[in-house]
Amino acid sequence: MHTIEELRDIFEAYTESHPFNREPQELYAPMAYIMGMGGKRLRPLLALMGAQLFGDAVHGALPVAMAVEVFHNFSLVHDDIMDEAPLRRGQATVHQKYGANAGILSGDAMLIYAYEFLRQVDNQAAIPRLLREFNRVAVEVCEGQQYDMNFERRQDVKIEEYLRMIELKTAALIEGSLVMGAVAAGAPEPDLKELAVFGRNIGLCFQLQDDILDTFGDPEKFGKKAGGDIVQNKKTFLILKALELARGETRTELARLMSSNPEDERQKVRRVTEILQQLKIREWAEQMKEEIQHTALAALGRVAVPDSRKAPLRDMAMRLIRREA
Amino acid sequence: MHTIEELRDIFEAYTESHPFNREPQELYAPMAYIMGMGGKRLRPLLALMGAQLFGDAVHGALPVAMAVEVFHNFSLVHDDIMDEAPLRRGQATVHQKYGANAGILSGDAMLIYAYEFLRQVDNQAAIPRLLREFNRVAVEVCEGQQYDMNFERRQDVKIEEYLRMIELKTAALIEGSLVMGAVAAGAPEPDLKELAVFGRNIGLCFQLQDDILDTFGDPEKFGKKAGGDIVQNKKTFLILKALELARGETRTELARLMSSNPEDERQKVRRVTEILQQLKIREWAEQMKEEIQHTALAALGRVAVPDSRKAPLRDMAMRLIRREA
Repeated sequence: MHTIEELRDIFEAYTESHPFNREPQELYAPMAYIMGMGGKRLRPLLALMGAQLFGDAVHGALPVAMAVEVFHNFSLVHDDIMDEAPLRRGQATVHQKYGANAGILSGDAMLIYAYEFLRQVDNQAAIPRLLREFNRVAVEVCEGQQYDMNFERRQDVKIEEYLRMIELKTAALIEGSLVMGAVAAGAPEPDLKELAVFGRNIGLCFQLQDDILDTFGDPEKFGKKAGGDIVQNKKTFLILKALELARGETRTELARLMSSNPEDERQKVRRVTEILQQLKIREWAEQMKEEIQHTALAALGRVAVPDSRKAPLRDMAMRLIRREA
Repeated sequence: MHTIEELRDIFEAYTESHPFNREPQELYAPMAYIMGMGGKRLRPLLALMGAQLFGDAVHGALPVAMAVEVFHNFSLVHDDIMDEAPLRRGQATVHQKYGANAGILSGDAMLIYAYEFLRQVDNQAAIPRLLREFNRVAVEVCEGQQYDMNFERRQDVKIEEYLRMIELKTAALIEGSLVMGAVAAGAPEPDLKELAVFGRNIGLCFQLQDDILDTFGDPEKFGKKAGGDIVQNKKTFLILKALELARGETRTELARLMSSNPEDERQKVRRVTEILQQLKIREWAEQMKEEIQHTALAALGRVAVPDSRKAPLRDMAMRLIRREA
């Protein structure tokens, strides 16, 4: 069995032996650029760990790991165009560096290459099942992105709608990465069902933790400016819960602040954070996360492989939930 | 065996029973809009005819036919964004009607749905082979689009580069549609090879005829304004061949006209067309088309099925070459 760090090395070696360096270079250079930016490779690691649950031959699942990473990067490139984001992982986004058209077309090609990697899985008998799972996840990610954009224009988003949105946009791919790795290793259907519950709920915790850290995290550790979601008027769980709990003038003020775009962003972030603290929103979010995490771990417990096999995956889940991976 | 018109009805019934009407409607409405614009359904017809060569059960290949049509429409949506085209088939393009972001995201979802239809083929054993072919074609279409955009900025495009570009951007999908239909019907590999040669060369003729009609066609029959390629300074086969044949002042004038954007477009179109006529470029193009068509039909002749089975496909090929389908 491999540790998380060993799996990461195995995956990096695979990406290096599969560079995007074909012609025309105007198409492939943006793909190489975003893939070379690094990132934590969480999804391919989950794919390899899903495979490792059911055997030691993780190398056969490397094409699946690559498929989910290439898909993830495709979605970043197109999302960044839609969001007009100038920076990604501290560097210029693809459309910023190469233009919007290059971002669109290279993104399309990455989506296609994701399917091409998937097809190269060692266990060819798994292809129909892998394709079904991949398509389901990919459609959900698009639907999630659409809901996310819709919610920017709505003032009446409900907490359950928000949770459904992050389930689609973020958790589905985390779930799918794990499940597809297990499919590649020949896992039986009942185990796949449990793994799906585990993965989806870990994915929800992962996003909730992102929401928490965006407001309450140490900017130096987290690598982002604190309060970015508040500045952008994002209706995350924190804000939606606060709007649910707040009464009277506080509620009016919070609603007003979260639809404003003031010159003094720091003052807005400070005041919204104060209100969230008064309402103990962080505690609410932590409690919610713990419940979801409990559901996740219970499902992992029901996967019919020896507990020792699950250790690295449980470790990885904890890192994801704390966003320390 | 079904006629072309019967196959078109069978395909239309299938598309009507698979509407894009899920939630969120902001994602699905643009997909339904472009799919509902109609068009000639050439690629799905070719898929069904590829299947019909090898048996009468064409219904099993309907998901493949749908996959190539959805893919084709995805490529139109994204190409129209990149080209900033306001109109498609006489109606507002998707990005014009719904915005660029909706065009990007709905296009992405259509690309994914193309794979999802492919997966639903009756002959599940064919999925790995279908996926390989689909990925190859899809990558080639992206590469072709990139070359097409590159050529807009280049003044030294060679005829063989142009032919390679249209082979990727247009002919690959015509070839692939036919081949994937045949794969769905369980065709043997040697026949697939001949069909690929047939399809690719018919696809080249199809694009060359488009180039010819754009300059020399009857605008009423063709449905486009005559000389559109000339106005846009597109280096089609006609122009590249003319630049090769022209000498002295004529060559200089043609090169100058084809990099100009004058107020009086009609005068430019008239003068360029005159030069093409002097150089007998239409005859050159027709001769080239005939040679390619000959190669295509010879390959179809070598497909090991009774000649009577090939009749509708030969008929269809003639329609494509004349763009009368």
